[in-house]
Amino acid sequence: MPQIVSWIPVPRGSDFSIYNLPYGAFRRGNAQHLGIAIGEKILDLHALASAGLLDDICDRSVFLAPVLNPFLALGRDVWKKTRLRIAALLRTDDAADGRLRELDAERFFVEQRVTQMAVPMKVGDYVDFYASLEHATNLGKLFRPNGDPLLPNWRHIPIGYHGRSSTIVIDGTPIVRPKGQRKPPQSDVPVFGPTTKLDIELEIGFVTGPGNALGESIPTSKARDHIFGLVLVNDWSARDIQAWEYQPLGPFLGKSFATTISPWIVTLDALEPFATAGPRQDPYPLEYLRTHDRWAIDIALAVDLQTRRMRERGIAPQTISRTNYKEMYWNMAQQLAHVTINGTKTRPGDLYASGTISGSTPDSYGSFIELTWNGERPIALPGGDERRFLEDGDTVALRGWCEVGEFRVGFGHATGTIQPAN
Amino acid sequence: MPQIVSWIPVPRGSDFSIYNLPYGAFRRGNAQHLGIAIGEKILDLHALASAGLLDDICDRSVFLAPVLNPFLALGRDVWKKTRLRIAALLRTDDAADGRLRELDAERFFVEQRVTQMAVPMKVGDYVDFYASLEHATNLGKLFRPNGDPLLPNWRHIPIGYHGRSSTIVIDGTPIVRPKGQRKPPQSDVPVFGPTTKLDIELEIGFVTGPGNALGESIPTSKARDHIFGLVLVNDWSARDIQAWEYQPLGPFLGKSFATTISPWIVTLDALEPFATAGPRQDPYPLEYLRTHDRWAIDIALAVDLQTRRMRERGIAPQTISRTNYKEMYWNMAQQLAHVTINGTKTRPGDLYASGTISGSTPDSYGSFIELTWNGERPIALPGGDERRFLEDGDTVALRGWCEVGEFRVGFGHATGTIQPAN
Repeated sequence: MPQIVSWIPVPRGSDFSIYNLPYGAFRRGNAQHLGIAIGEKILDLHALASAGLLDDICDRSVFLAPVLNPFLALGRDVWKKTRLRIAALLRTDDAADGRLRELDAERFFVEQRVTQMAVPMKVGDYVDFYASLEHATNLGKLFRPNGDPLLPNWRHIPIGYHGRSSTIVIDGTPIVRPKGQRKPPQSDVPVFGPTTKLDIELEIGFVTGPGNALGESIPTSKARDHIFGLVLVNDWSARDIQAWEYQPLGPFLGKSFATTISPWIVTLDALEPFATAGPRQDPYPLEYLRTHDRWAIDIALAVDLQTRRMRERGIAPQTISRTNYKEMYWNMAQQLAHVTINGTKTRPGDLYASGTISGSTPDSYGSFIELTWNGERPIALPGGDERRFLEDGDTVALRGWCEVGEFRVGFGHATGTIQPAN
Repeated sequence: MPQIVSWIPVPRGSDFSIYNLPYGAFRRGNAQHLGIAIGEKILDLHALASAGLLDDICDRSVFLAPVLNPFLALGRDVWKKTRLRIAALLRTDDAADGRLRELDAERFFVEQRVTQMAVPMKVGDYVDFYASLEHATNLGKLFRPNGDPLLPNWRHIPIGYHGRSSTIVIDGTPIVRPKGQRKPPQSDVPVFGPTTKLDIELEIGFVTGPGNALGESIPTSKARDHIFGLVLVNDWSARDIQAWEYQPLGPFLGKSFATTISPWIVTLDALEPFATAGPRQDPYPLEYLRTHDRWAIDIALAVDLQTRRMRERGIAPQTISRTNYKEMYWNMAQQLAHVTINGTKTRPGDLYASGTISGSTPDSYGSFIELTWNGERPIALPGGDERRFLEDGDTVALRGWCEVGEFRVGFGHATGTIQPAN
């Protein structure tokens, strides 16, 4: 790949090289603007559109909106044209469009460091899948110790459920420890109080574009037209509440209190160079679930934990898990085809999360309940703390990135700090 | 109760007496207007607000919006003031406000008969509960024949799950038979095709007002400030798809393809005279779920079925089930308190459905799977048809009403006709 250089400096190791150009939303004055991350800055799409530099792509109002939904609705041709234009405005070589560089840069850029980000789309429906064979097997062993860990439907269906869209929050939002019912094993009746098993789920979610009409479906071969990009997702979970409530209708209050996403939607176009073949599926799926393109993506993932004590003593966050998105059994195209095979409508800005991404070794599990085996094997941390589940004051950061040599496309992070129950 | 009379004629037996005054949304020209049903007419709130007759209640823009969400957000004081004003404008006695009557009525009223209705609120999150003891017991017997039909959590938790908000449709919308995976008992592997067990669920849903902030809760004692009104809900279900997919994360594609609501939101204020004590709860619920007010409502319910053959032969729809909302085990205040006890945010316009409303006798069940006991006992219909589940061309109408003598407050209907699979 020929090297492309931006006239905006991109530090070595930055997630936001010119190959990335992810979309987000940020506060500017009293307004919410759309923007694109480049190096340590944000290119303000509102300012860019106001200056007329995007007028030939689509109606200017699309880029003046506070959320990406109107842009998402326009589809892949407009996404591609916009990506090419932004790259041209930022690059320095013969393919450069010099117009932006000749204008007053102050108007067009803000520093990420001092900017407050926001959820960049209005989420209509939020679906959470269960696509990791290793995670589904581990949870089956923990939640149903007397049965077959993997239920008979799992290898035939991308199992999923609808989550709560009102509690999707942006990176950095404090997470208040939820209260609820749980039934301790030694008790005959449920008790009420703050969860004692607060957990994370390390996931990747995809954000949809135009979508389908009610009664129609999106075949796997058309999924690319409807998947705009990906974010990191932390599906915070209260395991004791979940265990007591989840039968027969699935997770509800054990999950609904908060879901954190990373601020930058990394486009499928930016991730294309990291596409790879997914795991072999056995049995071969039903026809509507078959995919022939390479839908797995080689995204390295890490979970960092810093307790209050570590923070107070100046001890850096500790990476407690490393895994990769490419091993997920069910891919995005299969998930979208499955959701819509019954005629269910998808809308621009819907969020479809992967489910916990766990690898095959204990240091690659994407949740505390797996990492500590439901608290049996606590994680020892520098400074003397140990953790079975999350405690108040703990900060968790999910990170994700694709990298080949100096060519890097990253997701930034999805972070949250636990606050005591109200 | 002193009798109040409207100068708009209300036929005997109408659901939309002056005691009701339910809110809906309808097409007028190229726009969507909010309105209130009275007799066989709709009072156009857009026209009323434009004429300045609501200006002292709140900002005019609230009533010029195409959906109720801004009005729902304003809360109970504004709801009450508006209800009093509308009643005053329509009544004939000494408490009447004569201003509307003096104006040109053509501008303010349209005929329901010729008007297309729309879903009157933008639904953020849609939750479906499982609040009937009889229904939960029946489904437990049918789906888990070898276990205890009622799971241990059911009498402690208002069990529920998140449904699909994108497929909430208005009365009259055709229902396309969904396709999907099912695993016939005699088959080792799943098969793909149109559902063979298309069903209804007779439910009542409540629509929320202002709602709570993230991390806070709505106690049962404050639920009345956040529940605006009720609609009929048909939670269409594909039982074969549901049975194969629902473990361990709950119903998904077996339910997500469509949910029909009735067009008119009947307010809690209009239903107040029909409030009654609910069933005794044993065991006594945990403190956050206790209610002291009368939260059950005496709403008579009916399910009408007309097959294509019946329609072609001029045979009227047949009532196949009659039941009542007042017997539901868990009430609305408990449901809202439960949803928010973990800090989950509710927003104006959220929809919370009751779950299937089944009585204790086989003619009072709210779904075909119960009425026909999973197809074992087909329903015989006039004209010679019989039904185990729904067939293409069948029309189902849910109806609901409260009545004491000539004092009637009704819901209209939630109707859908089955179209063949695409």
